[in-house]
Amino acid sequence: MITLTTDFGLRGPYVGEMKVAMLRVNPRARIVDVTHSITRHSIIEGSFVMEQVVKYSQKGTVHVGVIDPGVGTSRRALIIEGEQWLVVPDNGLATLPLKHIKARKAWEIDVERLRHFTGWEVSSTFHGRDVFGPAGALIDKGIPPEEFAREIALESLVKLDVEPRKKGDFWLLKVIYIDDFGNVILNLKGYKMPSEVELPGFALRIPYLNTYGQVKPGELLALPGSHGYLEIAVNQGSAAGRLGLKVGDDVRVKLV
Amino acid sequence: MITLTTDFGLRGPYVGEMKVAMLRVNPRARIVDVTHSITRHSIIEGSFVMEQVVKYSQKGTVHVGVIDPGVGTSRRALIIEGEQWLVVPDNGLATLPLKHIKARKAWEIDVERLRHFTGWEVSSTFHGRDVFGPAGALIDKGIPPEEFAREIALESLVKLDVEPRKKGDFWLLKVIYIDDFGNVILNLKGYKMPSEVELPGFALRIPYLNTYGQVKPGELLALPGSHGYLEIAVNQGSAAGRLGLKVGDDVRVKLV
Amino acid sequence: MITLTTDFGLRGPYVGEMKVAMLRVNPRARIVDVTHSITRHSIIEGSFVMEQVVKYSQKGTVHVGVIDPGVGTSRRALIIEGEQWLVVPDNGLATLPLKHIKARKAWEIDVERLRHFTGWEVSSTFHGRDVFGPAGALIDKGIPPEEFAREIALESLVKLDVEPRKKGDFWLLKVIYIDDFGNVILNLKGYKMPSEVELPGFALRIPYLNTYGQVKPGELLALPGSHGYLEIAVNQGSAAGRLGLKVGDDVRVKLV
Repeated sequence: MITLTTDFGLRGPYVGEMKVAMLRVNPRARIVDVTHSITRHSIIEGSFVMEQVVKYSQKGTVHVGVIDPGVGTSRRALIIEGEQWLVVPDNGLATLPLKHIKARKAWEIDVERLRHFTGWEVSSTFHGRDVFGPAGALIDKGIPPEEFAREIALESLVKLDVEPRKKGDFWLLKVIYIDDFGNVILNLKGYKMPSEVELPGFALRIPYLNTYGQVKPGELLALPGSHGYLEIAVNQGSAAGRLGLKVGDDVRVKLV
Repeated sequence: MITLTTDFGLRGPYVGEMKVAMLRVNPRARIVDVTHSITRHSIIEGSFVMEQVVKYSQKGTVHVGVIDPGVGTSRRALIIEGEQWLVVPDNGLATLPLKHIKARKAWEIDVERLRHFTGWEVSSTFHGRDVFGPAGALIDKGIPPEEFAREIALESLVKLDVEPRKKGDFWLLKVIYIDDFGNVILNLKGYKMPSEVELPGFALRIPYLNTYGQVKPGELLALPGSHGYLEIAVNQGSAAGRLGLKVGDDVRVKLV
Repeated sequence: MITLTTDFGLRGPYVGEMKVAMLRVNPRARIVDVTHSITRHSIIEGSFVMEQVVKYSQKGTVHVGVIDPGVGTSRRALIIEGEQWLVVPDNGLATLPLKHIKARKAWEIDVERLRHFTGWEVSSTFHGRDVFGPAGALIDKGIPPEEFAREIALESLVKLDVEPRKKGDFWLLKVIYIDDFGNVILNLKGYKMPSEVELPGFALRIPYLNTYGQVKPGELLALPGSHGYLEIAVNQGSAAGRLGLKVGDDVRVKLV
C-alpha cells in the first residue's frame, strides 16, 4: 500500500499525472490519497499530517510525501527504510513520521538509475510525478532501493526544528498545525496535565480542560488535542484568528 | 466494496487516518470515497447524499457514513444489515438510505469487542477512524456483526423528521439538499406533476417545468430534480440565495 | 485502469454515484480520480487536463471525461479507440488527448443497447453516471464497443479550435489553462526558444526565461511551462489577474 500526501491541490492535472505514472511503473499498486491540500510549501504541516497517518498504517506501508519548495535545486530525494517506508524530499518533511517507523536505513534516489525503470524524462519542476511517485511505486513492488538509490547516513537527513524546548518555567513551542476550525496544535506531547496554561506573549491565562464545550462560546481554552499534542482553542471560534497565529509561529507557554 | 461519506474535509489527516486504519483491519478492502465535504454536522445533507449512492450500489455494498456531532456522548454506533449495509452513528443519518436497502437487522457496535479486532485505543473524538471505519472494514471482510455488536430493534433507531406532511391543500416540506448552484431540493417525491407551484411563505407562484432554460435567466421555477425530489431553482442563479433557504428549513408548498 | 476527469465538484453525491455505478457494471475496475474540479463547463480546461494524464498513462487505459454542457441535447456520446481509450461527450473534449493516443476508430454510444448492460434508466441530466461511466467500465472489462455502440467516422468528431495560428510575425494563441497561481498556459508547443515575448494587446515585452525566480517578485515573464506549452507568469503573483485573462481568451504573441 502507498499513501500520498502533497500540496498539489485538487484542481489541475498534477494528482492524476502522478497516480497514472505510479501505476505505469507498478500496475498493481494500491494508492491511498491522504490529502493534496497541504498549505503550499508548508513542510511542517505536511510532516504533522504524515505522522498521523503513519501511526495508523500497517507495517510495510510506503508513504510518499511531496511538499517540495526546493524542487529543481540540489536537495536530495530520499527513501527511508524501516517498519514503514518514507519517500520524500530531504527538507525536513520526514521529521515527525520518523518518530514512528523505526528507521533502519536512508537512501538518496539516483534519478539517472530511476529513469531505467520509468523510461521518461525527469522534469525540473514536477518530481512528484517523475521521482517520488515512481520511487514509491517501485518500493511497493518489492524492488530493492539499491537498484535506484545509494545509501546515505540516517544522521545526515535535514530535520525540522520541532523539538519543544524548556527555558526555566516556560516551554518554547511551535505551531505545527491549524485545523479547519482554527484550533492551534503545538509541538508538545506527553506532558503532565496542567490545570491552566499561561501564554505570556498574549498576556493570557486559560483553563486546561477536556472538551470545547466546557467554556462559553467565544472563550479560549487549552486541551489535549485528538493527536496527543497540546491544543489551544476557542469554543465555537478560531483560536488562530483570535491570536493571529499561523503554522511555524513560536509560542511561549507555561503549564500551571 | 465500502463507500465513505463524511464531513471531515479534505485538508487534514483525518480521511487518510480513517482509510489506513480500515486497510489495517482489512487489507483487501476496496474503498470508494463518496465525499468528505458534507456541511459540518449536517445529518440531513449526509443522509440525502448516502441515499443517492445506495440507489446505484450493488448488493452487499457497505456504506460507512460519519456525520457525528454526538461523538463522545452515549449515542449508539450502528450496523444496519440488509441487501446493503449501513455503518453510521444513531442520529438519523440512516433515514433516507434505509428506504432502499431492505433492512433485516440492526446492531449496536460494542466498542470493547471491536478493539479485539483493531488493537488500538478508541479516542473520544474520532470514531470514524476508531469505530465506524474498522467496523465497516470487518463487515466487508465477512466477519459477522455478532462478533463485535449486539442486535437491537430496527424500530429503535433514531429517525430524521423528513417525511413530507400534507395539511389541507398544502405540503409542509423540508429542504434536504442545496447543490453547488443554489438549487433547493425538497423532501417530496412521486408527486403528481403540477403546472405551477405556490410558495405562500414567499408570496410566490412559479411555473413547474422540465429544465432551467425554460425561464429567463434570473427567474424562479420548480422542476423534477435529477434525484426525483421536487426542486426549486433560478435559471443561472441561486434559489437558495434568493429565498434565503438552507438545509433543514421548512417550506410550505402548494402544487397547482 | 480507468481515469475520471469531471466538473462535478466534490461536495455532492455525483462523484460517488458515478463510481458505484461503474463498479456495479465492472466490480473489478480500478478507478483513478484525476480531478472533479474542472471549471464548470470548461471544455478547454478539461481537454488540457486529460491531455496531461494521457501522456503518462499506460497503453490500454480508459479515460472517462465528463464536462458536458450539452447533456440532454442530441450531442453524441463517444468512445475513441486507440493505444488508449477516451469516453467523452462529442463536444471537443477529446481534442488535446487525441494528439497522444493514436486513435484507430470512433464509436457513438447507443444508449438503448447500453441499458441492456446497466439495467437502469438513463436520466436526461446525469450521463456521467448513466452513460459515460458505465461505458468506460464495460470497455475496461473487455466488452467490445460494437456491443453497445456504432462505428462513426473519426473525422466527424467535434474539435476545439486550439491550433495555434501564425499571421505574419504574430501567433494568434488561446489560453488553454490557468493554474492555481494564475500562471497562464497558451496553446503553443515545440516553438523555437525566444529571448523575449511581445504581447501587443497589452503593449508589453517580457523576457523569456527558465524559472520564475529570474525576475523580481511582481514582474512578468514568459517561460516553458512544465507541460511544454508557452506560459506567461508573474513571479510570486498572478499573470491571469494582472492581464485579466481567462481560459478560452485569445492572445496575440510575437516571439522575439
